Amino acid sequence: MPSEFDSRLLSFLAPWRNAPAWRVAFSGGLDSTVLLHLLAQLASREALPPISAIHVHHGLQAVADAWPEHCRRFCDSLGVPLEVARVQVDGGASLERAAREARYAAFAAALEEGGCLLTGQHRDDQAETVLFRLFRGAGVRGLSGMSASRPLGTGMLLRPLLGVTRSELERYALSQGLTWVEDPTNASDDYDRNYLRNRVLPVVAQRWPSAVETIARSAEHLAEADGLLGELAHNDLISAGARNEYIGMQLPSLAIAALAELSEPRQRNALRHWLAPLARLPDSAHWAGWRDLREAREDAEPIWRLVDGELRRAHGRLWWLANPWLGFVPVNQAWRDSSQPLSLPDNGSLRFEGEPPRGPLEVRYRQGGEVMTLVGRGSRDLKRLLNEAAIPAFLRGRLPLLWRADELLGVALLPDLQVEAGQGWILRWTPPTNDSGLS
Amino acid sequence: MPSEFDSRLLSFLAPWRNAPAWRVAFSGGLDSTVLLHLLAQLASREALPPISAIHVHHGLQAVADAWPEHCRRFCDSLGVPLEVARVQVDGGASLERAAREARYAAFAAALEEGGCLLTGQHRDDQAETVLFRLFRGAGVRGLSGMSASRPLGTGMLLRPLLGVTRSELERYALSQGLTWVEDPTNASDDYDRNYLRNRVLPVVAQRWPSAVETIARSAEHLAEADGLLGELAHNDLISAGARNEYIGMQLPSLAIAALAELSEPRQRNALRHWLAPLARLPDSAHWAGWRDLREAREDAEPIWRLVDGELRRAHGRLWWLANPWLGFVPVNQAWRDSSQPLSLPDNGSLRFEGEPPRGPLEVRYRQGGEVMTLVGRGSRDLKRLLNEAAIPAFLRGRLPLLWRADELLGVALLPDLQVEAGQGWILRWTPPTNDSGLS
Repeated sequence: MPSEFDSRLLSFLAPWRNAPAWRVAFSGGLDSTVLLHLLAQLASREALPPISAIHVHHGLQAVADAWPEHCRRFCDSLGVPLEVARVQVDGGASLERAAREARYAAFAAALEEGGCLLTGQHRDDQAETVLFRLFRGAGVRGLSGMSASRPLGTGMLLRPLLGVTRSELERYALSQGLTWVEDPTNASDDYDRNYLRNRVLPVVAQRWPSAVETIARSAEHLAEADGLLGELAHNDLISAGARNEYIGMQLPSLAIAALAELSEPRQRNALRHWLAPLARLPDSAHWAGWRDLREAREDAEPIWRLVDGELRRAHGRLWWLANPWLGFVPVNQAWRDSSQPLSLPDNGSLRFEGEPPRGPLEVRYRQGGEVMTLVGRGSRDLKRLLNEAAIPAFLRGRLPLLWRADELLGVALLPDLQVEAGQGWILRWTPPTNDSGLS
Repeated sequence: MPSEFDSRLLSFLAPWRNAPAWRVAFSGGLDSTVLLHLLAQLASREALPPISAIHVHHGLQAVADAWPEHCRRFCDSLGVPLEVARVQVDGGASLERAAREARYAAFAAALEEGGCLLTGQHRDDQAETVLFRLFRGAGVRGLSGMSASRPLGTGMLLRPLLGVTRSELERYALSQGLTWVEDPTNASDDYDRNYLRNRVLPVVAQRWPSAVETIARSAEHLAEADGLLGELAHNDLISAGARNEYIGMQLPSLAIAALAELSEPRQRNALRHWLAPLARLPDSAHWAGWRDLREAREDAEPIWRLVDGELRRAHGRLWWLANPWLGFVPVNQAWRDSSQPLSLPDNGSLRFEGEPPRGPLEVRYRQGGEVMTLVGRGSRDLKRLLNEAAIPAFLRGRLPLLWRADELLGVALLPDLQVEAGQGWILRWTPPTNDSGLS
């Protein structure tokens, strides 16, 4: 018999009807039990992607050792395949967060390309998320709560029950005679979430009985606003000539002058969206770094330091350099077999296109005072040549230089700077990536 | 002796140092007592605008009858002039809201042009405001809390203590030996605000001791976001050819096609900002009216009804018509003394520029089938003439028509439509305003 949730579920899931698989994150608790049951019933009436369940076993409490077996029996009764993933939780500062991270890593690993992971989070969870983030001073993005859909690994994370309250789920479970496991830690106020659920929300609901609904409605307004701020940032970043690459390297940059014409909040909004995939964002106090960098004298070399790397100014642009990228230490290296690529510690790799020049060859880094003899141009200071090519200062020290004894033969990335230009070889550099290692 | 708040106060108030007056909204309670004391001390060391106090007496509880006298004594001790304003509170649905409205009306009335009203609201009040609005499902604007400054009447409302917590104020009051009155209703949970203060926030603070700070920080993030959404709306409304006037009438309108090219959230954002000064905003459910109007067939005459008026579509534009404007009922009217302006019930007034045509004259409204004989053009259907002039349908029925017996002499607002063109008179119409009566 179709349930009251069926049409809502179907219309929410419509965009993912052609996914290769729907996997339910199945803890055995009320929420995911109802979700799995609803989907299994739906699948008997509708053509859906193959449905399976994945149970993550954290091994944190003895009582939970019985849950995989419970999940197995429930999945068998529905005819749904179950995978049990055992994960190691690294305690650290917050057990709550560590367990969540381990869980999502397991989900992401289990997900095929384009596959969907469906979780049972509901409206009450959403209200708790919003309050939790409000008590941490979050902005629009944070206060918009959990998104109903977002990328996860190579697939998507979907939360089809975000519009349904916990009591609606309970009613459904009872009406269907479902059984589920209760996590005993849910009753403990040790975790922030539980404190919100057990202590804060009941006091609020006494006065505002629909608080869970209204908080979730606020979250929806904010999610819409967040999208608009994204549109604004996108347009402003295009105007500020944002690009992810520079002469073949992963060096995101944007034009400072164009950005500085906008209002301060709009600058921050654009930078926030530009930085989001690159680094953890500065909190309110650290935007001073941006002001300093923007206002610095033309000949200064200001640095705006973030947790995951640095922002530098060069040639009127703002450049993002991630920590691993910044950690490079130049080391000279002989290139004995020039028919093979040469791997450079922390600095990518080099290879020749065409017939390599005769040896012995060595890769060194700039120290100052180098001179190059170019066909038709005679002897030139390397410094001058790099100035002409407008290579930012922070990049000069890590450009691999190809030497034969005391003759500088070529500079990586700059095919114009080879003494044997036209002799049949080109030095090709595959630079290191410039990732912060954020997932 | 300068207090720790002095430099914060001065830098906050800097933009209003040249205002004609600073008036403190003085209830006699802790917050405004501290504010008034701080300002009086400051004024002894700095050149400030003249400072005075205004106490609003609601007459709602017997205990409050003693407050004006307390306020008088305190102001006398500081040498600050005090005005006591007695207001009538109209009970209605919410006594809390009615009292606040009466209070602000009294403040606005007391304020000279460019004058500033300073209120004592602090960081704890801000946190309560945000929570209160969250439990009502507010959006970005609402959740950004009280603004630190906003227009009030012909002056400004300033909240210089919004960055200071209640306990900081208390510490100051005790250190200065200040006395203040306690509103006994503060202890009662009857009011939503008090319930938040007495029941909800203490439970939150047990777990998150800086919740008041962090909630206020969220509010600041949201205020910044709200400003950005305003910038976005402003630009989008310019692109959509928003204008406030049409042939001399207060008829705000904008181009539907240009607006419809934007994303749906961006359309709503633009419309929200366009409507804000005109009407109370539709809640989430009522945006369907916009979709219907936008998608309606070209020849349809869709109406989007709001509490304060209607939005109509005509000639590819969206028009705002306020309730008073919509309430017009056409009534024919003789114009006996055409040397004098003629006042039209609910429809402004008419006058002649130049020598009026000979009488007897009458003002009537369109019924259909009217014909006009224009110099050089012969007899024309009025309908056709109004089509040519592209007059929106909703306007046609209220354009005053000037008749002499069964001869249509002229149409208000359209100088080209007068049978005696060039004869030395022009019919001038001062149309009614199109205000919703929102303050």
